[in-house]
Amino acid sequence: MQSKVPLLDKITQYIVRRKGKQVRPMFVFLCAKLGGEVTESTFRAATLVELLHTATLVHDDVVDESYERRGFFSLNALWKNKIAVLAGDYLLSRGLLLALNNKEFDLLAIGSESVQEMAEGELLQIEKARRLDIQEDVYYDIISKKTASLLASACSAGIASTTKTDPTLVAKMKEFGTKIGIAFQIRDDLFDFGDEDVGKPLGIDIKEKKMTLPLIYALNNATKKEKRYIINIVKNHNTKPEKVREVIQFVRQSGGIEYAKEAMYRYREEAFEILHSFPESPSRYSLEQLVVFVTERKK
Amino acid sequence: MQSKVPLLDKITQYIVRRKGKQVRPMFVFLCAKLGGEVTESTFRAATLVELLHTATLVHDDVVDESYERRGFFSLNALWKNKIAVLAGDYLLSRGLLLALNNKEFDLLAIGSESVQEMAEGELLQIEKARRLDIQEDVYYDIISKKTASLLASACSAGIASTTKTDPTLVAKMKEFGTKIGIAFQIRDDLFDFGDEDVGKPLGIDIKEKKMTLPLIYALNNATKKEKRYIINIVKNHNTKPEKVREVIQFVRQSGGIEYAKEAMYRYREEAFEILHSFPESPSRYSLEQLVVFVTERKK
Repeated sequence: MQSKVPLLDKITQYIVRRKGKQVRPMFVFLCAKLGGEVTESTFRAATLVELLHTATLVHDDVVDESYERRGFFSLNALWKNKIAVLAGDYLLSRGLLLALNNKEFDLLAIGSESVQEMAEGELLQIEKARRLDIQEDVYYDIISKKTASLLASACSAGIASTTKTDPTLVAKMKEFGTKIGIAFQIRDDLFDFGDEDVGKPLGIDIKEKKMTLPLIYALNNATKKEKRYIINIVKNHNTKPEKVREVIQFVRQSGGIEYAKEAMYRYREEAFEILHSFPESPSRYSLEQLVVFVTERKK
Repeated sequence: MQSKVPLLDKITQYIVRRKGKQVRPMFVFLCAKLGGEVTESTFRAATLVELLHTATLVHDDVVDESYERRGFFSLNALWKNKIAVLAGDYLLSRGLLLALNNKEFDLLAIGSESVQEMAEGELLQIEKARRLDIQEDVYYDIISKKTASLLASACSAGIASTTKTDPTLVAKMKEFGTKIGIAFQIRDDLFDFGDEDVGKPLGIDIKEKKMTLPLIYALNNATKKEKRYIINIVKNHNTKPEKVREVIQFVRQSGGIEYAKEAMYRYREEAFEILHSFPESPSRYSLEQLVVFVTERKK
């Protein structure tokens, strides 16, 4: 990742230090092993996927005006929007060039499509946040794009790196990644309602007017009067903490948490079914464990 | 450009309405004609170059915290940073996918490299703005990356679309585009010192601590005391208008304007020399005129 710009090197060093769980590269490697032995191409796929993920995180920092991420100050806070946007662009193009320079055109296509879908998904979410009447189909459309598309890319690029000749296997693992990604995002959305006591701030999505599955379900099962009351709270620009707590209580009492959990487990089950079409192997077992981890994680 | 996200369509319509001079696609088409008849591939190259340019403008809006561009409100002002970053990412990936889906791998490489270089150039500039001791070599490095690289891409992708078989011609036009790009940026930098009376606000670069050619020359030809005095003004965080005017006066009196103009004409001359290695033709003549336009333009 070394460049000729010292500032950029400082930024990438900083990013490496605050690296996350690196779940996406793990999916790449394990899916690759499902198809055969890990190759150099697998390493490139893992690198591209993590670079794209990092680029979107850096851009998210600008986007969300959030000043802390993973316990460190965000790039945004440290170097302001200007640098965060440029660093994200750099990481993005760097990732794509890595694929391009190695003539990995399939990988390149997988990566570029993710970038487009993630941007579409986020924009769709912003658009829908204005009108608070979204239903489940739109919710699934949003999370498929903004979260599941990169995990789908990780899984399909992984197996493609070891079984280039079999397009049905690649399509299968793309489907697997999509289902995992959806389950992953539902898990994430549940945190907002304090499903588990992890000391994470609650109600952030509510404040940002993001309609998530537990809330959608709760509203669909409320009386007209309740519905109007809750929507009014969410619509309010500076939602007060006690009002946010009211929404959380409302969702909990209506069974929205259980409903969303069921949906999550259903997607996970479908992902397992796809896995089980492969013969038993250490990598299949590890993939199962990884899927359990991302859906049971506490933060 | 139609998408499945209505908000995105609104944004792209808005971008189309406020479109600029479209100088870059003109370079693509005219350079293509130097090599033969315009093909479908030429249109794709022109589209990619303009999409990348637009994506960087949209990101620049975030970056510069500027709320007006080309007389319209910037995307940033209208929809805030969040949307501008995502829309820029979308345009970027859309442009690259256009090339990818048509298996234009050379075009793709040309485009991705530009994106990386533009980000590097901007970051280098920000870094150097902290220490105000840059010399001409660093100035040329910055503008080659942040401005000239996309024009070099426009010219090389243009001729590559009609003469794929001749790598020396492509390299020649890349060189041509680089020289034009440098001349173009020097022209732009001169506006800051009110070289021409166009009612454009002066001293913006000075306020942003951007060291441009006229200022670098003036400082190199000043007494130690003058130099310290001027650098102190530029360093100051909230440079007052009358102080900015002092810097402008200083640069004007030191011959910095003439020096930068000479440099600009030298690059233009070198670009003409490259052009004149091609036989006379209507497209060669038009290219000359276009080059004159971008270096003589008043805004």
